[in-house]
Amino acid sequence: MVFGNPGSTELPFFAEWPGELRWVMALQEASAVAMADGYAQASGGPAYVTLHSAAGLGNGLCAVYSAARNFSPVVILAGQQARELLPFDPYLFAQQPTEFPQPYVKWAIEPARAQDVPRAIDRARHIAMQRPAGPVFVSVPMDDWDVATEPVSVRHVGDRFTGDTDELAAAAAKLAAAQRPVLVVGPEVDRDDAWGHTIELAERIGATVWISPHANRIGFPENHRAFRGQLIPARDKVRAALDGADLVLVLGAPVFTYHIVAQGSPLPEGAELIQLSEDPAALARAETGTGIRTCVREGVAALLDRLPPAAGDRPRVEPITHEQPPLTEPPTGEYVLHLLGDILPPDTILVEETPTFREVRNRHLQVRRPHGYYNTGAGGLGWALPASIGIKLAEPNAPVVCLIGDGAMQYSIQALWTAAQSGIALIVIVLDNGGYGAMKDLAAQLGATHPPSFDLPGLDLPGLARSYGCVGIRATTPEQVRQAVSQALAAQTTTVIDVPVAAVTADLY
Amino acid sequence: MVFGNPGSTELPFFAEWPGELRWVMALQEASAVAMADGYAQASGGPAYVTLHSAAGLGNGLCAVYSAARNFSPVVILAGQQARELLPFDPYLFAQQPTEFPQPYVKWAIEPARAQDVPRAIDRARHIAMQRPAGPVFVSVPMDDWDVATEPVSVRHVGDRFTGDTDELAAAAAKLAAAQRPVLVVGPEVDRDDAWGHTIELAERIGATVWISPHANRIGFPENHRAFRGQLIPARDKVRAALDGADLVLVLGAPVFTYHIVAQGSPLPEGAELIQLSEDPAALARAETGTGIRTCVREGVAALLDRLPPAAGDRPRVEPITHEQPPLTEPPTGEYVLHLLGDILPPDTILVEETPTFREVRNRHLQVRRPHGYYNTGAGGLGWALPASIGIKLAEPNAPVVCLIGDGAMQYSIQALWTAAQSGIALIVIVLDNGGYGAMKDLAAQLGATHPPSFDLPGLDLPGLARSYGCVGIRATTPEQVRQAVSQALAAQTTTVIDVPVAAVTADLY
Amino acid sequence: MVFGNPGSTELPFFAEWPGELRWVMALQEASAVAMADGYAQASGGPAYVTLHSAAGLGNGLCAVYSAARNFSPVVILAGQQARELLPFDPYLFAQQPTEFPQPYVKWAIEPARAQDVPRAIDRARHIAMQRPAGPVFVSVPMDDWDVATEPVSVRHVGDRFTGDTDELAAAAAKLAAAQRPVLVVGPEVDRDDAWGHTIELAERIGATVWISPHANRIGFPENHRAFRGQLIPARDKVRAALDGADLVLVLGAPVFTYHIVAQGSPLPEGAELIQLSEDPAALARAETGTGIRTCVREGVAALLDRLPPAAGDRPRVEPITHEQPPLTEPPTGEYVLHLLGDILPPDTILVEETPTFREVRNRHLQVRRPHGYYNTGAGGLGWALPASIGIKLAEPNAPVVCLIGDGAMQYSIQALWTAAQSGIALIVIVLDNGGYGAMKDLAAQLGATHPPSFDLPGLDLPGLARSYGCVGIRATTPEQVRQAVSQALAAQTTTVIDVPVAAVTADLY
Amino acid sequence: MVFGNPGSTELPFFAEWPGELRWVMALQEASAVAMADGYAQASGGPAYVTLHSAAGLGNGLCAVYSAARNFSPVVILAGQQARELLPFDPYLFAQQPTEFPQPYVKWAIEPARAQDVPRAIDRARHIAMQRPAGPVFVSVPMDDWDVATEPVSVRHVGDRFTGDTDELAAAAAKLAAAQRPVLVVGPEVDRDDAWGHTIELAERIGATVWISPHANRIGFPENHRAFRGQLIPARDKVRAALDGADLVLVLGAPVFTYHIVAQGSPLPEGAELIQLSEDPAALARAETGTGIRTCVREGVAALLDRLPPAAGDRPRVEPITHEQPPLTEPPTGEYVLHLLGDILPPDTILVEETPTFREVRNRHLQVRRPHGYYNTGAGGLGWALPASIGIKLAEPNAPVVCLIGDGAMQYSIQALWTAAQSGIALIVIVLDNGGYGAMKDLAAQLGATHPPSFDLPGLDLPGLARSYGCVGIRATTPEQVRQAVSQALAAQTTTVIDVPVAAVTADLY
Repeated sequence: MVFGNPGSTELPFFAEWPGELRWVMALQEASAVAMADGYAQASGGPAYVTLHSAAGLGNGLCAVYSAARNFSPVVILAGQQARELLPFDPYLFAQQPTEFPQPYVKWAIEPARAQDVPRAIDRARHIAMQRPAGPVFVSVPMDDWDVATEPVSVRHVGDRFTGDTDELAAAAAKLAAAQRPVLVVGPEVDRDDAWGHTIELAERIGATVWISPHANRIGFPENHRAFRGQLIPARDKVRAALDGADLVLVLGAPVFTYHIVAQGSPLPEGAELIQLSEDPAALARAETGTGIRTCVREGVAALLDRLPPAAGDRPRVEPITHEQPPLTEPPTGEYVLHLLGDILPPDTILVEETPTFREVRNRHLQVRRPHGYYNTGAGGLGWALPASIGIKLAEPNAPVVCLIGDGAMQYSIQALWTAAQSGIALIVIVLDNGGYGAMKDLAAQLGATHPPSFDLPGLDLPGLARSYGCVGIRATTPEQVRQAVSQALAAQTTTVIDVPVAAVTADLY
Repeated sequence: MVFGNPGSTELPFFAEWPGELRWVMALQEASAVAMADGYAQASGGPAYVTLHSAAGLGNGLCAVYSAARNFSPVVILAGQQARELLPFDPYLFAQQPTEFPQPYVKWAIEPARAQDVPRAIDRARHIAMQRPAGPVFVSVPMDDWDVATEPVSVRHVGDRFTGDTDELAAAAAKLAAAQRPVLVVGPEVDRDDAWGHTIELAERIGATVWISPHANRIGFPENHRAFRGQLIPARDKVRAALDGADLVLVLGAPVFTYHIVAQGSPLPEGAELIQLSEDPAALARAETGTGIRTCVREGVAALLDRLPPAAGDRPRVEPITHEQPPLTEPPTGEYVLHLLGDILPPDTILVEETPTFREVRNRHLQVRRPHGYYNTGAGGLGWALPASIGIKLAEPNAPVVCLIGDGAMQYSIQALWTAAQSGIALIVIVLDNGGYGAMKDLAAQLGATHPPSFDLPGLDLPGLARSYGCVGIRATTPEQVRQAVSQALAAQTTTVIDVPVAAVTADLY
Repeated sequence: MVFGNPGSTELPFFAEWPGELRWVMALQEASAVAMADGYAQASGGPAYVTLHSAAGLGNGLCAVYSAARNFSPVVILAGQQARELLPFDPYLFAQQPTEFPQPYVKWAIEPARAQDVPRAIDRARHIAMQRPAGPVFVSVPMDDWDVATEPVSVRHVGDRFTGDTDELAAAAAKLAAAQRPVLVVGPEVDRDDAWGHTIELAERIGATVWISPHANRIGFPENHRAFRGQLIPARDKVRAALDGADLVLVLGAPVFTYHIVAQGSPLPEGAELIQLSEDPAALARAETGTGIRTCVREGVAALLDRLPPAAGDRPRVEPITHEQPPLTEPPTGEYVLHLLGDILPPDTILVEETPTFREVRNRHLQVRRPHGYYNTGAGGLGWALPASIGIKLAEPNAPVVCLIGDGAMQYSIQALWTAAQSGIALIVIVLDNGGYGAMKDLAAQLGATHPPSFDLPGLDLPGLARSYGCVGIRATTPEQVRQAVSQALAAQTTTVIDVPVAAVTADLY
Repeated sequence: MVFGNPGSTELPFFAEWPGELRWVMALQEASAVAMADGYAQASGGPAYVTLHSAAGLGNGLCAVYSAARNFSPVVILAGQQARELLPFDPYLFAQQPTEFPQPYVKWAIEPARAQDVPRAIDRARHIAMQRPAGPVFVSVPMDDWDVATEPVSVRHVGDRFTGDTDELAAAAAKLAAAQRPVLVVGPEVDRDDAWGHTIELAERIGATVWISPHANRIGFPENHRAFRGQLIPARDKVRAALDGADLVLVLGAPVFTYHIVAQGSPLPEGAELIQLSEDPAALARAETGTGIRTCVREGVAALLDRLPPAAGDRPRVEPITHEQPPLTEPPTGEYVLHLLGDILPPDTILVEETPTFREVRNRHLQVRRPHGYYNTGAGGLGWALPASIGIKLAEPNAPVVCLIGDGAMQYSIQALWTAAQSGIALIVIVLDNGGYGAMKDLAAQLGATHPPSFDLPGLDLPGLARSYGCVGIRATTPEQVRQAVSQALAAQTTTVIDVPVAAVTADLY
């Protein structure tokens, strides 16, 4: 059943109306929305209503306000003018269409491409239904209805807290039956103090373990034999990593976070996916699979309760090892990471902002403790240096190492003064490749023919450190690195260690 | 520990800095926010940071974006210019201060009065901590720091899903120990299909039951012996109703929704309050008590699991009865409600929009089934008539009655056409007091000396109904009402019954 | 010169950097924006800066706030993640990208299609420069840089008030030299009380005159010999109407308002366009031509001052006439309009909401006085009926006629009560084609195969009118119409005249 | 005439309705707004309409959208719930009330205090009327209507471009008649290249000249005999400076920008004020006086055209002089400024960010050329250092000096790298008082008893400069300063000169 009042910009939506779908027409949009609200509440929802993006929505906004206060899962489809005309402020167009229904919708979108409309409606529905429920808004430009799109598969997404008993039982049964299960561990695991539960689960079902793409916290010991690495944020690379899996259990992460465009499914042929997350947004937008809404620790505990004590017929998961990279001059970033893995104590807390070396870090300098790794999940630079000060203040007795690039270090360089003045023994290690290495690598991959220079010559990092009151050391040989770290670990003040590394182009993804 | 970079508009905040509170000063605001983010994550949160409302926040917004993506509970206190200067767009003022941090904070506020700042900070903290966590923003005008305020008591608000085992066990123990427990039943109970659980709980602990103020759904049978009525949305009236209680358990409602200003605590002396809700906003802003975040049905089930089978030493709760009001000419609204309570079948679904008669309805025309009552929780008019059409379409086999005022009916009068065209047998009963009765009553209570007229003369409601294709009947005597309803219950089409009632001034609250 | 700090999402912008364009790289985005601000102020502007859409912009927002307070025309280009990834909330994407820089930019956009990026940047530049100047924001998804687009021509848009002396002199010279000038008269002419100036200008230069598409006010006598009609809101129809013109002077209207997608230029080959407007948004977004910012009355007066007293060598503009349409049964809308043109007094004020008949109205029922015509420029329905009440209250001595469709009338039908109670003699004439005629016509043009019904059966409009206290008349013959109007013109109260017309499908555009 | 539909939250507004004001009641809010729109258009505006803040506004938002597209000056007064209840999300409250009408109002406000409501309505009216006109929104909490406020005087604010001929003639007549006129010169004068016109005007009418408070550009030669200084941003200080004036002409500035709360009028008894500005916001919000909307250059030119050639009977304005401050150890900031005034060439461009010394700078280091001074009008720190790089790039042949505090310098310290790499000969002079001097001064004035430390020990500024590739010099004696500046003026690269100054507490305002 679809409620609505028709307008010229929604016409293509009506052009071939399916006979089995009932259209309930109202003479004013306030009525259309309130009818849908009543229907959603009485039926359990969702209910759909169609309106014009500005004029129709405008008449309906008191009813949207009511639907919000009623926690009623109403999905509003609005007809925006054609994309092609929008640059000219055409008649009946909605200006800033997603702002007009605010603040009384849970989510509002005008998709960036016609192809994305079906998925946006699917996501909107799941957001509307998440407890507490409420209205959502999807503005659809008129010319989008005529664009062919991929079908969106129907997903089950739990909208109640801590799953349903049924949802959890079904998930446990699938885990018990899986032959080659894989865990993808997201940042919620570490946030939720669920390392222990997650290790137990991995061992019980004989799963291999990956860290989710761009996780800003590490929820699993990287020196565990089941550990395989971190997923690379592109569909093809995720699929390759998960190759062979028949069941993928994602704990506390989106499905998935991408950075680079690539085609196809992130899952290997035949694999199934189950996602546990406390985040309704991550559940609603997941690309594929079944979603269960729960705090991760309770969710994994509930699965363990329902699993058989062991899954004995599964092969033991063997560890993988990583060779020490060869020493060059200057050394590569990988060499230095390996060296640091050797030097730094196991209870070290890493605060990392080295985009160029993010993907290789876990092979050499492994996180071995809960709350042992932080970066910024947002990707903005300038976070790690000051954040490591906050972390050190919260954990004064653990070694805290800020591992940072020379470019990244500049965004919040002033924080060194606070480190010096606070009397904390922070250790800052700069992997100094003389420029924006990630930019240079990505530009090469993009086939950029003549970009401007992304080098950063003429920066004296130890000089900056000293000018702010820290100890500043330049360490160019392994021995100097070893000695500098050793000195820093024993110091009462903040030490900045600048380690020049080769500016080789990495195959980032 | 408070992080920050100071600006002139935050100065009063610093004027008498408590020696035991550590102030960590950054040289740039991006650093201050990222330090707080690191601290919040490593300590579990919340962390506090202080900035200028526009200039400082502007420098810090990449770090706010990071905190959002890191799900980091950072509470940002921002120094706005003095309220007194704001009309003049003074130097260093923040324009639309709560919009600047969007879309990367969970909540942003500049309190409407200086007195409300402490409570806003408390609420901000609880919102920040609710899963998934994230940053929040409180803009504080400079002159607010010098205003004396009431202290805000420290509340425990659960931020995990389905409570903590500990939280639920503690609540169950208190229920078991309470001598005079009261349940306040909110709309979540009906939304969550938890009538059965709630009745069992009330009977198990021997509680009396109130409906929460302005509930838009009824979650308890109004003809149950424990039922006492609906709380009136003013602090003094809530306190009077709850008088004698030692424990108040609020299920699925805010604590509390008010409409009218009144002073004092909503709780009687010595009473304790526990709130269960799926809505993190309702938990964070509750005026008092302990909060547990859960879907109501699971939450009540968990309490029942932990309660002793009976609380045998408690007195049986006796029912209260309501007399039939006397017949006048024209009849009072109460008389007509009592009459309808007599006529309408028990499985009737009421959709109500009669502000003048909301408080007395439950004494005479009682809801006796789940999903048996709807109004708009927002208070906007024009909802009930179209919503009742949607509800009837979802529940074609139940009697659906839209009980509405003559003023309220006009806002979406066009919906009658859809009712007529849809071929549904909706029943619309108008309690017609010839004007905006609630406005007149409130104006009288306010002591308005000469307001403009709020009468609505010259409206022919049956004529309107017929012009839209419905049956329209004017029923002025009890017998006519009885006959019209009987005809409507048997009809295949929508019937509008206009019942003139006395325009007496009620004591609304 | 372009300032910036590079991020991965802007990389394609840098891939083939033109050697002659200087790139000034900053190490933090706050610096990049402030550099651009300084450059814009010292050079007169605009200045360009490039940032990442969320992380980079976040660091730069204090500098954006400064640029706003400095009234500095800084154009910010921001790198958004690829459109293709946006449905999945990818790494480094900006959520609600146009909200983040608010409230400190004058305009923010993420274009709806890759093809629209160049025009958006052009528009942004012109908005930035309009007095008072300020920063603007264009978010560009990463994959847009690789899409081929039409080049955007360089336009001159005046940014000072009341033009420049030079701009006005140049425009006057072109008008004097034009052989076949055309005026397009927009709503600002009537708003600005510039009928007299505009008539004088048209006669002085021998121009024909069109009303701008979807003008909500008429700024020129429709019975003047130079009047040609109203432009139809589609590029091809505008071009056809302007065929033969060598100069188009647009007074107080956008260039142009479209409703329907069509291709090509709105101007005939070789024609030039000059736009005068008080609206900086309309000037900045104009599709083509030269813009002069001025209140229309002063602008036209300034042109008249600079024009020779007559342009004697031009042919006299001949009037066009419109035949009376044939009488059918029921009559067509055009027939009724022609009839009303005959009956209604010349000083009648029309308030019109008949989308189906908008394009033909001016041939038959012509506006002959200033402030003689109103509709809603927004296109939303439900405006005309209440607006005509406001207009009648402001002009109690003029005949005010609300000319409205049967569908349109329903959106604010309640307003009839206010008309009746206010004691005003409004005349409401309904062109009643029994449904949403415009929807049906557009659906047919779209080739809709089986849309749901857009008919409105079972509406008794005179009955509704009477139920609200108005006079309600159904007039089915010309004589009945004539008599009803005559009665209404003499009445002391509001009269609703329902005139059934044929539901023929019109060729709307 | 006031249009509206009443709600409970607006009731106090109606309590004592003035008999002479007509109240036009609508039955639905869409009607109320459209009535007001029609009335505003037909009458010329403004029109007033009253609604509930959320429910009522929601019903009316299509009509608000129409009013926006119609450029109709409708002032919407909305009834918000009582301030006292807002912390509890009461029934019928509007959440983020100023966002709901967006993006279709020109301005939306809920005043920060009850006392500010009348002024907010006055400002709203003037914003609505400014060309192009449009709707505005004022949300009024229910309890505000009962608070006594100061009356707001009726102001004339021109809403057309380049004034009206009448407005300009009246202003010229007043200038000609004034005995002791004062010019207040704002940043628009320099932005608009109107030094010449402004000097001519000052000399023609014998005015003394002040720079507007916190002007970010200087529009008048500070070594001119009529120059008196810069207004201090507090009402009492402005009044003291303007003492004796009978007419104050404000050119291109707000009336006035304040930083500090003080009471009373900014004008001396009996003085009149005229404001010329291109900024409609500055005109609408001016505290007092008559406003004329114009680009300043054309506006002053129009005044000069209408003034008599000389105002011969007025006394010649005599210059004021400033003594060289005594030399202390370390020197005071004033001493160093005086020294720099002596050393720096007259065509120097100053880019200033020294909050502590802003008020005294113009006595010693005077701006003597157009485009000779910049700071950030916003007050956020971190602007001047990078902005001076942009300015130097735009003006490569002029000496550009960034005059900055040691605290201010840290916010964008990274910009030194861009300066070094760009090969520009920027001069950065740091007035280094070892901390946040302005904060310390203001804290002392506020009577702060024990604020945390605002000192900045341990910063090696020359070291930082050198680490970024600049020349870094510490100059502690006048001779060293003289020599360092001389060296910097001759250099091909950027030089940072760190000048320690006394940390004496200034009487800032």
